[in-house]
Amino acid sequence: MSSIKKVVLAYSGGLDTSVIVKWLQETYNCEVVTFTADIGQGEEVAPARAKAEALGVKEIYIDDLREEFVRDFVFPMFRANTIYEGEYLLGTSIARPLISKRLIEIANETGADAISHGATGKGNDQVRFELGAYALKPGIQVIAPWREWDLTSRETLMDYCEKHNIPVDFSNKKKKSPYSMDANLLHISYEGGVLEDPWTEAEDDMWRWSVSPENAPNEPTYVDLTFEKGDIVAIDGERLSPATVLEKLNKLGGDNGIGRLDIVENRYVGMKSRGCYETPGGSIILKAHRAIESITLDREVAHLKDSLMPKYAEIIYNGYWWSPERKMLQTAIDESQEPVNGDVRVKLYKGAVHVIGRRSADSLFDEKVATFEDDAGAYDQKDAEGFIKLNALRMRIAASKGRNLL
Amino acid sequence: MSSIKKVVLAYSGGLDTSVIVKWLQETYNCEVVTFTADIGQGEEVAPARAKAEALGVKEIYIDDLREEFVRDFVFPMFRANTIYEGEYLLGTSIARPLISKRLIEIANETGADAISHGATGKGNDQVRFELGAYALKPGIQVIAPWREWDLTSRETLMDYCEKHNIPVDFSNKKKKSPYSMDANLLHISYEGGVLEDPWTEAEDDMWRWSVSPENAPNEPTYVDLTFEKGDIVAIDGERLSPATVLEKLNKLGGDNGIGRLDIVENRYVGMKSRGCYETPGGSIILKAHRAIESITLDREVAHLKDSLMPKYAEIIYNGYWWSPERKMLQTAIDESQEPVNGDVRVKLYKGAVHVIGRRSADSLFDEKVATFEDDAGAYDQKDAEGFIKLNALRMRIAASKGRNLL
Amino acid sequence: MSSIKKVVLAYSGGLDTSVIVKWLQETYNCEVVTFTADIGQGEEVAPARAKAEALGVKEIYIDDLREEFVRDFVFPMFRANTIYEGEYLLGTSIARPLISKRLIEIANETGADAISHGATGKGNDQVRFELGAYALKPGIQVIAPWREWDLTSRETLMDYCEKHNIPVDFSNKKKKSPYSMDANLLHISYEGGVLEDPWTEAEDDMWRWSVSPENAPNEPTYVDLTFEKGDIVAIDGERLSPATVLEKLNKLGGDNGIGRLDIVENRYVGMKSRGCYETPGGSIILKAHRAIESITLDREVAHLKDSLMPKYAEIIYNGYWWSPERKMLQTAIDESQEPVNGDVRVKLYKGAVHVIGRRSADSLFDEKVATFEDDAGAYDQKDAEGFIKLNALRMRIAASKGRNLL
Amino acid sequence: MSSIKKVVLAYSGGLDTSVIVKWLQETYNCEVVTFTADIGQGEEVAPARAKAEALGVKEIYIDDLREEFVRDFVFPMFRANTIYEGEYLLGTSIARPLISKRLIEIANETGADAISHGATGKGNDQVRFELGAYALKPGIQVIAPWREWDLTSRETLMDYCEKHNIPVDFSNKKKKSPYSMDANLLHISYEGGVLEDPWTEAEDDMWRWSVSPENAPNEPTYVDLTFEKGDIVAIDGERLSPATVLEKLNKLGGDNGIGRLDIVENRYVGMKSRGCYETPGGSIILKAHRAIESITLDREVAHLKDSLMPKYAEIIYNGYWWSPERKMLQTAIDESQEPVNGDVRVKLYKGAVHVIGRRSADSLFDEKVATFEDDAGAYDQKDAEGFIKLNALRMRIAASKGRNLL
Repeated sequence: MSSIKKVVLAYSGGLDTSVIVKWLQETYNCEVVTFTADIGQGEEVAPARAKAEALGVKEIYIDDLREEFVRDFVFPMFRANTIYEGEYLLGTSIARPLISKRLIEIANETGADAISHGATGKGNDQVRFELGAYALKPGIQVIAPWREWDLTSRETLMDYCEKHNIPVDFSNKKKKSPYSMDANLLHISYEGGVLEDPWTEAEDDMWRWSVSPENAPNEPTYVDLTFEKGDIVAIDGERLSPATVLEKLNKLGGDNGIGRLDIVENRYVGMKSRGCYETPGGSIILKAHRAIESITLDREVAHLKDSLMPKYAEIIYNGYWWSPERKMLQTAIDESQEPVNGDVRVKLYKGAVHVIGRRSADSLFDEKVATFEDDAGAYDQKDAEGFIKLNALRMRIAASKGRNLL
Repeated sequence: MSSIKKVVLAYSGGLDTSVIVKWLQETYNCEVVTFTADIGQGEEVAPARAKAEALGVKEIYIDDLREEFVRDFVFPMFRANTIYEGEYLLGTSIARPLISKRLIEIANETGADAISHGATGKGNDQVRFELGAYALKPGIQVIAPWREWDLTSRETLMDYCEKHNIPVDFSNKKKKSPYSMDANLLHISYEGGVLEDPWTEAEDDMWRWSVSPENAPNEPTYVDLTFEKGDIVAIDGERLSPATVLEKLNKLGGDNGIGRLDIVENRYVGMKSRGCYETPGGSIILKAHRAIESITLDREVAHLKDSLMPKYAEIIYNGYWWSPERKMLQTAIDESQEPVNGDVRVKLYKGAVHVIGRRSADSLFDEKVATFEDDAGAYDQKDAEGFIKLNALRMRIAASKGRNLL
Repeated sequence: MSSIKKVVLAYSGGLDTSVIVKWLQETYNCEVVTFTADIGQGEEVAPARAKAEALGVKEIYIDDLREEFVRDFVFPMFRANTIYEGEYLLGTSIARPLISKRLIEIANETGADAISHGATGKGNDQVRFELGAYALKPGIQVIAPWREWDLTSRETLMDYCEKHNIPVDFSNKKKKSPYSMDANLLHISYEGGVLEDPWTEAEDDMWRWSVSPENAPNEPTYVDLTFEKGDIVAIDGERLSPATVLEKLNKLGGDNGIGRLDIVENRYVGMKSRGCYETPGGSIILKAHRAIESITLDREVAHLKDSLMPKYAEIIYNGYWWSPERKMLQTAIDESQEPVNGDVRVKLYKGAVHVIGRRSADSLFDEKVATFEDDAGAYDQKDAEGFIKLNALRMRIAASKGRNLL
Repeated sequence: MSSIKKVVLAYSGGLDTSVIVKWLQETYNCEVVTFTADIGQGEEVAPARAKAEALGVKEIYIDDLREEFVRDFVFPMFRANTIYEGEYLLGTSIARPLISKRLIEIANETGADAISHGATGKGNDQVRFELGAYALKPGIQVIAPWREWDLTSRETLMDYCEKHNIPVDFSNKKKKSPYSMDANLLHISYEGGVLEDPWTEAEDDMWRWSVSPENAPNEPTYVDLTFEKGDIVAIDGERLSPATVLEKLNKLGGDNGIGRLDIVENRYVGMKSRGCYETPGGSIILKAHRAIESITLDREVAHLKDSLMPKYAEIIYNGYWWSPERKMLQTAIDESQEPVNGDVRVKLYKGAVHVIGRRSADSLFDEKVATFEDDAGAYDQKDAEGFIKLNALRMRIAASKGRNLL
C-alpha cells in the first residue's frame, strides 16, 4: 500500500462515494478532501457539505461549474458536429475532463498526493478521469476503489455502511432506479438492468427528462437559434449564457420528446455495452449547427471537418480531452468556425427536430448562381464540359487501355 | 459540329426530353435511340414508347431496373452508412450510375457513337451521367443539350414545341410542380421555386410521398427487419426482394411522416443549393443498419468504416461510382459486412425512427462481460489500471517535462 | 473577345512570355503590365526590364521574393513533412501561389482587369495560377494564351517573332535544353524530351544543380541544423534568414549529389507525367524535420499529422494553397510546431542524407523510462499485462464467439 | 499462480530463453514445448534442438518459415508502401504475428494451455505476441517472464544459470553485442547501449548486414525487378520465390550500403525509443513498388492508399496484424494491386536507391496525352478553362462575399 497523505475525491454525496470516503480514510489512513460539482445533473449539491462533514471531512469543495462546462467543453465539442459511432452525443464523456481538471486543481491547492473517484473498473469513466489527471499532473496517484476493494455486491456494501455508521437513506433506496445513471447539463444516461439484453425495449418510465413522443404536444414548437462562431448565443432573439442556452433547449426538447437514444456502443476498455441516453438540447444543437454551417462553411472545409470528426469523437470518448492531439484538432475546428454566424429556425415535434430555415450575413449561398431561373451570366454552363472532361480523363485513359470497372 | 450518327438519349417521356429528341435529330441530323427506365420514380414508363414513336424514334428501350437498382446500387451504398454532409442520403446520386451503365450498354448494342441526357449545366447530374459514360466507354461522345442550345426559357421551349409539333399536355402543365423534381425508388427531391431562399420554409403541399408528421397516425408502428451481410432481406419475417423491401419501407415510412429532409448542400460544380428530399425507406434502413452493425461489427472495423464514409459519400455524390477508388472502398466495405446478420426492431412514429432492439447469432455483445452484476471472472477489473497507466504514459512524460495542456 | 483594358503578365523575360506580351497587346488591344520575380530560379531578373520596355510595356514590376517565398510558403509546407505521392517535394507547386498573390496585388495597384501567364493547357501550373487568382480576386479575368492561340509549334512561334520584331537569342536557342524546365529556390524540374518514355533513364548532363552521386566527394559532410517552431533558423550554429538557409542547403546538398528524383506523377488535369527534380536543400530539410519532430512531438500528434499530410500535399499540388481548407489545416500544423525546437545532425554523402543525431530542450525522449538498464521504477512492467489484456478484449470476445481471422 | 500444465515457448536457443525454459518448469511446474523458427535471422536453428533436449524439453518444434514469412506477411505489407512514422519499415513488427500464429497452432497440436515469450515488459513485442495469441485463441494463457520474475539484472540471471546448470557460452558472451538486437529476413535492429542518447552517432561496427556507404563499390549496380500484383517475382529476369527475392535484395542492398536507418520512434506502450535498423532489401522494394504503382495505379486509388497507409502501419506496429480491421484494409489494398505488374529498373549506389525506369503492359501512362509535342487531338486544352473555373467557383463566390484568405 503506497503511502498517501491526502486524497481528493470526486464526491457526489450519494451512498457509494460516501462509502468511499470512509474506505479511503480507513484503508489508506489518509485525509480525504471532497469535491462536489454542479454540472447540471439536476440534484442539489449543497447537502454534500453536511454529509461530508459527518464523515469527518475537513476540506470540502462545492462548485457550480455549469457555465464553464457548457462554454469550454460542450460548445467546443459541438463545433465539430461530434457523434460517436454515428449516434452517441458523448454526454458522459464530455463532463469527465472538467472533473479531472478540478480534481487536480484542488489537489494542487490542498497539497494532496492522490485523487479518487467512484467509477467502475469496467467502464470508460475511470479511463477518462485518470487520463486527464495524469496528463495534468503526472506524479499524481490515483485510487480507484471499485478496482481494489471487495465491496463488490450490494450486501457487502450495506454491511460496510452498517459497520461504519454511514447513513443509508432507505426511502431513497426504495425508489432507486434499477439502472446505472449519470446526468449532467448535456444528458442523462441509463445502463444495466433490463437494458443488458439489447433486444429488450427500454421501459417508458425509465426516461426522466423527456416526455415520450406520444405524449408530446400535438402542435409543433418553432424556435430560432442564433449562432456566433459556431456557438448558440441567443434563442428566439434573447441573448443567453452558454449554460442557460442548454438549459432552455433541454426544456424545449424534453417537452417535445426529443433526444431519446437507445444504442449499443463500443467501450474503450473493449466490450460492447447498451446505453440509453436523453440529450434533448444537444440533439437540437447538432441539427442546428449543421444547418448554419451548411450556408456559411466552404465545401472543402465542411468535408475536411466531416473526415476529422470520427477521430475527434473517438478522442473524447476514449478520455483524451486533455491531450495534444485534441488540442491540435480543436485549433483547426475553432479556426473553421469564424464565419459560422447566423440564424437557424427549427421545428420541434414529437421526438424529431426539423430544420426549416437558415440565414446569415456570412452566407455563401449565392441565389444568383444557384437559381434555376435566368442567372444573368453568373454561371457559364459551358464551363461544365471541360470540368467533366478533365475529371474523367484518368478514367478515359484507363478504359482505353482496357481497364474494366464492371 | 462533330459528326454523330446515332445517339442514345435518357428519355423520360416528358416534355423536356421530347424536345431533346427533336433537337438532336435536327441539330445533329442523327438517329435517336430512346432509353426509358423504371427505377421506381412512380410514373408509368410504358407511355414513353408511343411518344418516342411519334417523334420518329425507331429504336426504343424501356427497362424495369428496380431490382438491379436496389440490389447493386442502393444496398451496397447503405452498407457504408453513407450520408453526404451529415444529412443527405444520396437518393439522386445513386441512380445516375445505373442510367449511365445502361446508356453505354445500349450504345454498344445499337452502334451509337454518342449519348445524351436532359440534365442542366449547373447541376451534379450532368457530371454523374458523363463521368460514368466516359469511364465505361472512353470514346463515347456526350451531348448535353442544356449546355448547348438556346432554349433556355420556358417561352423559347414552347415556341420550339409549337414549331415542331411536339404535343404539350396543358392539363399536365397546369398542375406542374413549381419545383424541379427527381424521383426513384430511394427518394424524391425538390429544388427551385420558393426553396431558392434557404430561410423560407418548404410548403407542406410540396411533399408527395409522406404525410406530414402532424398527420401521421397517433399510434406508433413497430417493424422487424432482418439483415444478411448488411442488406435487409426480410420485413416482419417475410422474405422480400431488394426492390420490394425498399417499396415496403417507403410505404411504412411515408405513412409515418418519416424521411423528410430540408438542407443546403454543396454541389460538385461549386455552388451551394437548397434541396428538400423524401427518403422514407432509406431513413429507416440507415438507422437499422447502424443498429445491426452495433452488435455484430468489431469496434475498430466500425470506426474505420466511419472514417472512410465521408470519402465514400463524396465519391458517390460527385459521380465517381464507376471508378477504381469506389471499387476499392466497396471491396473493403463488403468484406466488413460478412457478419452483419440479425434482426432490428424499429418503432416508426410521426417523423422519427426509433431503434428499440437488436439481436444476432453473430452478436459480439457479451452479457457476461458487460454486466453490472457479478461477471464470474469474465473481466478482471485490475487490468484497467495497467491499461490506463500505459495509455497515459506519453502524456505523463510530457507533463513531467513541462508541457502544459491547459 | 471580352473587353480587357489592362492585363498583368507573369513575365520571365524569355522568348515565350515576350511573345505573349506582343500577342496580348495585339489580340486584346490592351495594355500589358509585366511582373518578374526572383524566387531563386538562378537567372538574372534585371534584364527583364529592358526587354519589357522594348516591347512597349510601361508598367514593369521586378521583385525579389526569395525571403517571402521561403518564409511564407516553403517553410510552412515542410512543417507538415509534405510529400506528394510518396516522392515529390512540390517544388513547382509551392511557388505558384506566391506568383498568383503578386499578380493580384499588382492588378489591384495598376487597376488591371486581367492576369495572364505562360503555362500550358495540359499542366498543373495553369490551375495553380488561376485558382489562386480567382480565390483572391473573384472578378479577375484570366488570359491563358497557350489555351487560346494557334502558335502551338516552334515554327509558328518563330514566324510570329519575326513578323513582330521580337528578338530571338539564337545563341541561347542553340544551347536550349531539350527539356521543359522550371526552377526556384526549392527545386529545378525537367519534363519532356526523352523523359516522355518512363523506361528511359535521364541523361546525366540534364541535371544542373547537383553533381552526380558518383562525382560527389569521397568524404561525407556533417551539418548541424537548428530548428525553432519547426523551421530551420541556423546551420552549424550560424543564424540565417529563411532564403539563406535554403540557399546554403542547396549548395551543401548539390555538392553531395543529394535530391535527384525521377518519378511518374499524377497531374490534377488527369494524366500521368514523368518528371525529374532536383531538390537538394528540401531533401535535407525533410529528413531533418522528421528527426527533430521524432523527439519533440507527441506520438498521437505525429500520427495525426501523418494522416493529414497526403490531403495537405494534394491541396498544394492541385493549386489550392489559397483556400480555406489549406488555411484550416495549416492552423493545426502550425499549432503542433510550437515545441519543435532543437538540433539535428545530418551526414551528407553521395546522394543520401543520413540523420545521425538529434537533441532538444523540448525533447520528450525519456532515457529513464526507455532504458534497457535498471530504470529505478520509472516504468512498471506489470502495467503492460492489463494494457494488453484490455486491448485484446474485443478480439478475445470475437474469437470466443467463433470469429476466425485466419 | 494459475495452474498451467503445458506451455509453448518461443525459443531462440539463446541464453535468455534457455533460462526461461528452466524458470517455467520450475515456477509453474509445467511441461515446456519449445518452438524455434527460421525466419531468416541468419543463425542456425538446428542447435536449438540439442539445447532444448538438454533442458528436458520433450516436444521440440523447429520450423523453416522463411517463405511463409515473406509471402504472407512481408509482401502483403509492402503492397501498402507501409512506413511507420515516415521512416521505419516495420521489420520487427511484421515477424511477430507469424510467431504468434505458430505458437497457437502448436498449442492446439500439443494441448498446451499457455504460451510464453522472452520479450521485455517495456517493448512492443510483448504486445504483438500476446495480441496475436489472444485473437487466435481467446482462452490461451500468456506467461511473460520478464514481467514476472526477479532476474532483471545480468548478475541475477548468471546466478540462476549457475544454480540450474544452464551452460553459458562465455566465448560468445565476450563478443556479445552491447545492443539489444533482433533479426529476420527483412531486417536487423539495434537498440540500447550508447544509442540511448539520441544525439550520439551509432558506431560503424554496430552494423552487421551492410557495408557503410563509404565502403560500398565505386560503381553503381543496376537491377531490374519484375512485379506481379504488387509483389516482386523476378530479379534481372530470373524468377524467384518470395524468400529468395528478399535474400537476394538484401545481398544487393547490403553490398551497396543501402537500408541503414537511425530513428527515434514512438512505442505503443507510450515511450520514445531510439532504434537503428538495417533493411537493405526492404528499402529497395519500397522504392521500386512505388515506381511500378506510379504507372499502373489510378491516381485516386494511389491517393486513397496513401491516406490509409499511416493507419495500416500503425495497426501493424501496434500488433494488430491479426485483427478484423487489418483484414478489412488488406482486402482493399490487395484489390488495388491487380494491375500492379511490370518492371522497374533501380540503380543502387553507396547507400541510396535510385529509380531510373519503369514499364508495364498495364501502364496508364499515355504518351499521346502527356507529350509536350503535338498530341494529335488526344487532349483538348480548352477543357482546362472550364475545369479551373468550376473548381474555383466556391472560392470566387466566397471572395465576392468578402471572405479573405490572406
